[in-house]
Amino acid sequence: MTTAKPAKRTGRPGRPGYDLDSLLAVAVKVFNEKGYDGTSMDVLADRLGISKSSIYHHVSGKQELLELALGRALGALFAATTEAGTTEGRHIDRLEYLVRRSVEILAAELPYVTLLLRVRGNSVVERRALARRREFDEFVGNLVIGAAEEGDVSPEVDPALVARLLFGTVNSLIEWYRPRVGVGVDELADAVVAMTFDGLRRRR
Amino acid sequence: MTTAKPAKRTGRPGRPGYDLDSLLAVAVKVFNEKGYDGTSMDVLADRLGISKSSIYHHVSGKQELLELALGRALGALFAATTEAGTTEGRHIDRLEYLVRRSVEILAAELPYVTLLLRVRGNSVVERRALARRREFDEFVGNLVIGAAEEGDVSPEVDPALVARLLFGTVNSLIEWYRPRVGVGVDELADAVVAMTFDGLRRRR
Repeated sequence: MTTAKPAKRTGRPGRPGYDLDSLLAVAVKVFNEKGYDGTSMDVLADRLGISKSSIYHHVSGKQELLELALGRALGALFAATTEAGTTEGRHIDRLEYLVRRSVEILAAELPYVTLLLRVRGNSVVERRALARRREFDEFVGNLVIGAAEEGDVSPEVDPALVARLLFGTVNSLIEWYRPRVGVGVDELADAVVAMTFDGLRRRR
Repeated sequence: MTTAKPAKRTGRPGRPGYDLDSLLAVAVKVFNEKGYDGTSMDVLADRLGISKSSIYHHVSGKQELLELALGRALGALFAATTEAGTTEGRHIDRLEYLVRRSVEILAAELPYVTLLLRVRGNSVVERRALARRREFDEFVGNLVIGAAEEGDVSPEVDPALVARLLFGTVNSLIEWYRPRVGVGVDELADAVVAMTFDGLRRRR
């Protein structure tokens, strides 16, 4: 994944001043501010300071921008499900690893993950993203089931409920976390894992 | 607090068919669907099936509806901060009590709490609500400090961060919890408290 900075403008009129990544970064920012449905290609062109045809040089329309943005967030999260930390060892440790990686991904890809978490299913692209999110939730639920079978979490807990609460905590970070302000990502991941896996209450 | 059902319609034209509570319930539903800024008085009148002047019979405008709705959620949350469970005993137990009560309030006042949590500060009413939310967060932060002083939470944790994570977990429930479907509110509150205070990982 590349960083999302505008490419150098050439100054020549009609020449797109963005590569696809930097164009996507601006589009996602606008989607998050105004909502995807409330963002027209005119608004996008205006914010990018380029013509609509320059946008069409890169993508077929705003739906493709949405698809690319959601794909970036989902791609990063699903990549984490195939890492050794998530696939080897005791299930409770795999679960903890995946929670930690998800916090890191959320922090690194904040605008993309924010967009993903706000998807409501108003189009085919959005419904496909929701289906992928459910797939991820099921993967997490299966890790909880594995951890319960190995005796590492209470057998009384509902795995799907635990998965929801755990990623509810992770996902709630989009509401306030901003990279480079205050809390570092390692401290954040440590705090999330400490609260959810060890609990706040100190044992005596 | 009253339940939010439309009052019996009289059938007489021009006569408001709602009392203030039932009118508010519909308005909050529409605000949550379309966003407050995206909801006009015309849209509200249309959804209520009454004239705008019938709405003005109850309130001065949509801003007052917002204020009443946010006040209902904030009122319930602040009332919980004055209950004996939150003001007496060890701070860790007060904190746990307040988390449990907040889950209950969220479930009982779901549309109102949802509206509150989506406020972004675009008007005086919204900024006042955000200021009250910060006040609540500080109250929670002070409970965490008290618990640390009593040795019940690790002294290494940042109280403000713990407060954010804890209520991030609680607030994330608005994304998926629906009363009367699946999980009961007691089971939900138990699961939230178990994960955040005792941790998922079973001790051997």
